[in-house]
Amino acid sequence: MKKLKMGMVGGGIGAFIGAVHRRSARLDGGADIVAGAFDIDPAKSLEQGRNLGLDPNRVYRTYQEMIKGELALPREERADFIAICTPNHTHFPIAKACLEAGFNVMCEKPMTLTTAEAEALEALVRKTRLTFGLMHTYTGYPMVKLARDIVKAGDIGKIRKVVVQYPQGWLYKLTGRENMQASWRTDPKRSGRAGCMGDIGTHAANLAEFVTGLKITEVLADLSAFVKGRRLDDDGSVLFHMEKGVKGVLVATQIASGEENDLNIWVYGEKKTVAWYQENPNILRVLDQTAPEQVWKRGNAYVAAKSPAAARCSRTPNGHPEGFLEAFANNYINFCDTIRARMEKRKPTALELDFPGIVDGVRGMKFINAVCDSSEQGNVWKKI
Amino acid sequence: MKKLKMGMVGGGIGAFIGAVHRRSARLDGGADIVAGAFDIDPAKSLEQGRNLGLDPNRVYRTYQEMIKGELALPREERADFIAICTPNHTHFPIAKACLEAGFNVMCEKPMTLTTAEAEALEALVRKTRLTFGLMHTYTGYPMVKLARDIVKAGDIGKIRKVVVQYPQGWLYKLTGRENMQASWRTDPKRSGRAGCMGDIGTHAANLAEFVTGLKITEVLADLSAFVKGRRLDDDGSVLFHMEKGVKGVLVATQIASGEENDLNIWVYGEKKTVAWYQENPNILRVLDQTAPEQVWKRGNAYVAAKSPAAARCSRTPNGHPEGFLEAFANNYINFCDTIRARMEKRKPTALELDFPGIVDGVRGMKFINAVCDSSEQGNVWKKI
Amino acid sequence: MKKLKMGMVGGGIGAFIGAVHRRSARLDGGADIVAGAFDIDPAKSLEQGRNLGLDPNRVYRTYQEMIKGELALPREERADFIAICTPNHTHFPIAKACLEAGFNVMCEKPMTLTTAEAEALEALVRKTRLTFGLMHTYTGYPMVKLARDIVKAGDIGKIRKVVVQYPQGWLYKLTGRENMQASWRTDPKRSGRAGCMGDIGTHAANLAEFVTGLKITEVLADLSAFVKGRRLDDDGSVLFHMEKGVKGVLVATQIASGEENDLNIWVYGEKKTVAWYQENPNILRVLDQTAPEQVWKRGNAYVAAKSPAAARCSRTPNGHPEGFLEAFANNYINFCDTIRARMEKRKPTALELDFPGIVDGVRGMKFINAVCDSSEQGNVWKKI
Amino acid sequence: MKKLKMGMVGGGIGAFIGAVHRRSARLDGGADIVAGAFDIDPAKSLEQGRNLGLDPNRVYRTYQEMIKGELALPREERADFIAICTPNHTHFPIAKACLEAGFNVMCEKPMTLTTAEAEALEALVRKTRLTFGLMHTYTGYPMVKLARDIVKAGDIGKIRKVVVQYPQGWLYKLTGRENMQASWRTDPKRSGRAGCMGDIGTHAANLAEFVTGLKITEVLADLSAFVKGRRLDDDGSVLFHMEKGVKGVLVATQIASGEENDLNIWVYGEKKTVAWYQENPNILRVLDQTAPEQVWKRGNAYVAAKSPAAARCSRTPNGHPEGFLEAFANNYINFCDTIRARMEKRKPTALELDFPGIVDGVRGMKFINAVCDSSEQGNVWKKI
Repeated sequence: MKKLKMGMVGGGIGAFIGAVHRRSARLDGGADIVAGAFDIDPAKSLEQGRNLGLDPNRVYRTYQEMIKGELALPREERADFIAICTPNHTHFPIAKACLEAGFNVMCEKPMTLTTAEAEALEALVRKTRLTFGLMHTYTGYPMVKLARDIVKAGDIGKIRKVVVQYPQGWLYKLTGRENMQASWRTDPKRSGRAGCMGDIGTHAANLAEFVTGLKITEVLADLSAFVKGRRLDDDGSVLFHMEKGVKGVLVATQIASGEENDLNIWVYGEKKTVAWYQENPNILRVLDQTAPEQVWKRGNAYVAAKSPAAARCSRTPNGHPEGFLEAFANNYINFCDTIRARMEKRKPTALELDFPGIVDGVRGMKFINAVCDSSEQGNVWKKI
Repeated sequence: MKKLKMGMVGGGIGAFIGAVHRRSARLDGGADIVAGAFDIDPAKSLEQGRNLGLDPNRVYRTYQEMIKGELALPREERADFIAICTPNHTHFPIAKACLEAGFNVMCEKPMTLTTAEAEALEALVRKTRLTFGLMHTYTGYPMVKLARDIVKAGDIGKIRKVVVQYPQGWLYKLTGRENMQASWRTDPKRSGRAGCMGDIGTHAANLAEFVTGLKITEVLADLSAFVKGRRLDDDGSVLFHMEKGVKGVLVATQIASGEENDLNIWVYGEKKTVAWYQENPNILRVLDQTAPEQVWKRGNAYVAAKSPAAARCSRTPNGHPEGFLEAFANNYINFCDTIRARMEKRKPTALELDFPGIVDGVRGMKFINAVCDSSEQGNVWKKI
Repeated sequence: MKKLKMGMVGGGIGAFIGAVHRRSARLDGGADIVAGAFDIDPAKSLEQGRNLGLDPNRVYRTYQEMIKGELALPREERADFIAICTPNHTHFPIAKACLEAGFNVMCEKPMTLTTAEAEALEALVRKTRLTFGLMHTYTGYPMVKLARDIVKAGDIGKIRKVVVQYPQGWLYKLTGRENMQASWRTDPKRSGRAGCMGDIGTHAANLAEFVTGLKITEVLADLSAFVKGRRLDDDGSVLFHMEKGVKGVLVATQIASGEENDLNIWVYGEKKTVAWYQENPNILRVLDQTAPEQVWKRGNAYVAAKSPAAARCSRTPNGHPEGFLEAFANNYINFCDTIRARMEKRKPTALELDFPGIVDGVRGMKFINAVCDSSEQGNVWKKI
Repeated sequence: MKKLKMGMVGGGIGAFIGAVHRRSARLDGGADIVAGAFDIDPAKSLEQGRNLGLDPNRVYRTYQEMIKGELALPREERADFIAICTPNHTHFPIAKACLEAGFNVMCEKPMTLTTAEAEALEALVRKTRLTFGLMHTYTGYPMVKLARDIVKAGDIGKIRKVVVQYPQGWLYKLTGRENMQASWRTDPKRSGRAGCMGDIGTHAANLAEFVTGLKITEVLADLSAFVKGRRLDDDGSVLFHMEKGVKGVLVATQIASGEENDLNIWVYGEKKTVAWYQENPNILRVLDQTAPEQVWKRGNAYVAAKSPAAARCSRTPNGHPEGFLEAFANNYINFCDTIRARMEKRKPTALELDFPGIVDGVRGMKFINAVCDSSEQGNVWKKI
């Protein structure tokens, strides 16, 4: 297996998500960081490069310099893809520049600030035929893939209803000085039109679409900014309709004191129910009105038999918990395998292509716009 | 303690809820059944009377006969209250007749078919000054009372948001012949305007109001009848607003295959969160962004110190689970103690009055009407 | 169904277990208290009789007077059975006197202070052919009956190993004045040779034998009295062997601060595992190396199909939790049905006879003796 | 941070634990593989080297060749440590050779086949002053470190009792051809004197000693080989005594069908209880007889305040689960930091030295011997 070379924009000292990208890309031996523009402050960028043991020549002051610098290298040494871990408002220009320069891209979400940007990026990806990943971590969990495959196989019957909850508590109050992350995440100019809905509501919506294989067609939202002084929504409740007559409810909030990252989904079919809980991610509950509940557990042969995609994204035996980093890394596995396939001039398989990307990004932006429009216009239905 | 004499309308052979009333009223020794009109079929009524070991003279053919028959008895022998366990559409006429004849009433829910009936009953209760209980079982759980008292004490801070879920699966399909309960529960003429919303949505709404101490002021609902051939809603999603700027989401469904009776509530305050789960009712979770989660457990001194109402409604030591029947019985304890207080010509205490009654019944009817109106009119806000 | 008349010895004001007996016997309408000798202090006994609404003529000063007084009544009015809820050391003389006088007996556990007494009682029960119940509450839980029936059906294969844990915390320290219960429970003269092992170790052993259908043949125990000043064991660890080569471990402790009543059992068979947890009693886990875990839930048709005994001891629908009192009451249901069968001169069915009795009591005493002998003699194997 | 160079013996294609070592060492960027002798079959070893992207010159046929080959390289290129991931019986000679050649060693467990070997290795480690790690994964979990630090701080009071359970199911039967792992794990010549006790019993014992900070002084064991045809124990129950009067029970089994890797520990102190469950590793329960249960959750400030060691070994924010690989990697973090400290000629800090090593290995061998002796000699106490 060819180890891919990762460049990174953002992910400076102390930044949470950049470190997650590096760890996850590296975990399975399929990629490792070789270059970066880690910080607006060149000194800090260099320091981070040193921390990471990088060649100082490949630690850049700006993403523009990184693109230029990497392009100047022989193809074999050059970064194979660039991970974008910067504040939301910069995702678009950086991704655009990378794609235009011929680099594959793994982008943090939300992908852009506006739908127009998202669609522009989508056009660019189609045109360049480069590989573009969007880090919707949660669909990387093996048991989420299993849920999707159980649904797809028809085991739960035609879907009727979906409930997805995503409570967090970390923005339950403004501190005197909000921490670095909180400040940009709650600033419209850098975060986009939505706060909570952009940050975690999109994960919830993406999860619902992923597991059901259906698209959300319209939403009716009631967004709030509960914390005094906050400029963007920190909470939202959303009714939604999906294709094929499915109805749903999405609740995402960041003011639920003491809740950590409690993303949960229940999908009710005509025969059965599947339920998954991010904080206990190695199991999938399958409920049936006529039989004992089944608790499917990661790492078992019966999981592999039902979901090759889940088995492929599972490293440790049953009972040896995998977590968030492994889910993250699963997206990298498939993203990197897709890049390798294209390097080898072969068509990536469905299993390799099983990672979130540009389409999810465009849908995420549309979801954000629709829920914001709905809420601003008095809680009315808005098509996506 | 004077043992109260219970009369019952409904609760014939095989009827679920009548048996629950009898068991619960009897559990703590505070009441027992002495009379009944159990079935439209007089022979079956008599048979049920025999099953229950009643004096055959006090097994009646109709509630009208029961009222007449009991009134003919000396006051000391007469039923002290009448429990109404019949299909929804008969609650109102029976309750009315009982109150008018001077009987205290414990009524199953929903209290009536219409708001007009509910308000008429309310007027009658006020006029007669009789004791009227409405069986919202779930607020009888000690840990729900604890939740209310923690909220009331300000421990979680000003409330921001409430999420209440109530999935069941038992109506996930129409069987060739729906069982007795299912048939009237899904028949508009006998069940009222709402199906799922009347049957369990009202429990969820009542729970939200009880724990928060706040009233729901408006709702926006999206109701469905997912099962082909069903005439009433079997599922609903509701956005709601409460007093003091609180927002909420209520999801109730009866088509969630394999879900049993999974009523859950989360209340998010400015400081903390409380969460309670009916299927694991002996604990209350208290979440706090700055400290370990606390799991309060029924039967402990620290519960009693915070909530005398919870302690009063707790029989067994910590770790010895109490359940649904005990919650039900707790409503009887307070209902009966209130009757006794009034017999003794003293004002019932706040602890004695801590059971659901006519006010909850009126609110329940208004809730049903508002959610049905909202859904029928295109998912718009409706005041309660 | 004939309502049986219950007499009670013990169960005075404030006594925990007497109230549980009364509530449980009464819950299903099959029995109710009519007579009692509640307290050594006659005034307190009378007061308790008043609290319970009894005829003062049937509130006695001593159990001897109760026996005499009840015998003086016409058979139809007389107590049908007597519940013994006194401190351990009085169980034997009271039970003996009741049986000799022709009364059926429901006895708290441990049944006696010594094996000799237990065997004497057993002989008396055989001789009198009266109905004798011993309140091992936990085998009254429906899901424990289901576990037994799953094992009996061979579904888990030949049993290999059993692990049973029973941690409690309420004796984790001596308070200045130990409460009433604690004082006699930790006094060898009144409690018997064992403390924790007699109080809860016997429950654990009984549960292991009940679920497996196998007898413990020998034990090796390591008992401790961790709390300074305590005269009896407050903790014990026991290795045991059962019939058919089964091995096991039993841990019972009352010094586990914060543990409430956490009786748990795991039975490992050649094919599958069953696991049950008293604090979450409405489910039974069935584990299988080759398939998803099954969670069986009380109140479902699939439970009834596997275990009529579980279905018979289940009142509320699935998802409406039953608890400790209901388990207790299940023992009363079967005990009372057995009495009724014998009143009707018919042989009780296996389902009616499904309650713990004299045989369990004798085995309990032998278990206590064996573990005490083993521990005192240096942790050596002792036959039961 | 200097990235350390890892050599590996074992860990060929398809081998589970070798892959875990590579992933874990690499996860945090502190080490990566540069050399290996992966398989007895040189072709397979080379193939694995290719899979891993290694320089073929550093893929060796034997560990002896690897030692020689690496020594031939300049010090800066040479492997900084060697991970030993071979069957049990080869750990000792390989570790010995590596240490004698001057290499730091990370060794799989059990460390050796005999206590004599273990002590010889201990002497060698002391003599060479090299860094030696032993992969007791479970003490790498942050919440285990927190448990230890809570105990150490005296928060639960003097310890009284410890219960540790470790059920697995994967050896519940012999398959026609046991898989590669199973075959050597159940062969006395390659696995050592014990089967289950060596494989997982030692983890359980190590965990008990780690959390309590106390040594097991004597054991009394009842070992079994339940599966016909198996030559080593596949199940064991152990009573044990620790320093300071602490008593304990250890149950480890590999025949518990459907159990996965359910290592659990409860430590009962005079004031409180701590409980941890490997399959739900991100929480630690703290029980207290006088207050609500506390659920401490990884990634929170209150954890860091109590346990810098836990905070240091935590990567993702609260609610983003970490698992087995991360625990494994935590041992590598501290192992590598200790190596770096010694490279820098400074004394490693207590936090850096917080990984299992030679002392744990010697104790593990003594534990194995003592439990085997005890069981073979009729379940008698054996000193460790």
